[in-house]
Amino acid sequence: MVTILLVSHSKKITDGLKEMIEEMTGNQDDITIVSAGGTDDGRIGSDPINIKNEIEANSNSDSIFLFADIGSAVMSVETAIELLEDETLQEKCVYIDGPLVEGAFVASVQCMVNPTRESVIKEVTKLKSARE
Amino acid sequence: MVTILLVSHSKKITDGLKEMIEEMTGNQDDITIVSAGGTDDGRIGSDPINIKNEIEANSNSDSIFLFADIGSAVMSVETAIELLEDETLQEKCVYIDGPLVEGAFVASVQCMVNPTRESVIKEVTKLKSARE
Repeated sequence: MVTILLVSHSKKITDGLKEMIEEMTGNQDDITIVSAGGTDDGRIGSDPINIKNEIEANSNSDSIFLFADIGSAVMSVETAIELLEDETLQEKCVYIDGPLVEGAFVASVQCMVNPTRESVIKEVTKLKSARE
Repeated sequence: MVTILLVSHSKKITDGLKEMIEEMTGNQDDITIVSAGGTDDGRIGSDPINIKNEIEANSNSDSIFLFADIGSAVMSVETAIELLEDETLQEKCVYIDGPLVEGAFVASVQCMVNPTRESVIKEVTKLKSARE
């Protein structure tokens, strides 16, 4: 059981990406895709507390792979992980520095084959990073 | 005047990306962001004819920068450009092989500074490619 947690400044982007991945991978029972884009009140932005809550709601997953698009969305992910009080849960979180759409898609496909963090990181790293 | 044309398998992704870029760059008069994701009837997929129509609707732009997410969306962009009958318009089209969200955002910011195709390609290429 793994979770792929999507963070963007836009909730429409993460909602659309969740739908796209679920349809293209056939909605796998053991892979949960979470859309955590936008601010709490639906504006453009990102919200560390919302991301932290979504991580905690997926605490039964073996691994939680987090993807983010640009600048402050990446910082919100890092802050959310730091805010976790449960160290075991914190260790399950893996922020992956890859392109949001392309990286989360490749990670989801790889989770169908081999859902370990090593294999997922390896596949996404084959894509070049979205950031310098 | 330039156009940034967004293609994804998901219209929600390109709608959200258009909104995000417009808000974060202050909705520039001389930069048009076009959301051309999804199929004609709202399903997950991409549609070369729709993309071609959107290119033609932006024929007064000096350059049309196209971004796509994965696999067949990239092919749809390439097909749409090939289908254009107007060679002058065809030459205005630049498909940029970068990550959809991060690349289109960086391109939009660069267009505010220097909207030439050389400068936009250079900035997006500083991001590493989303694909191998």
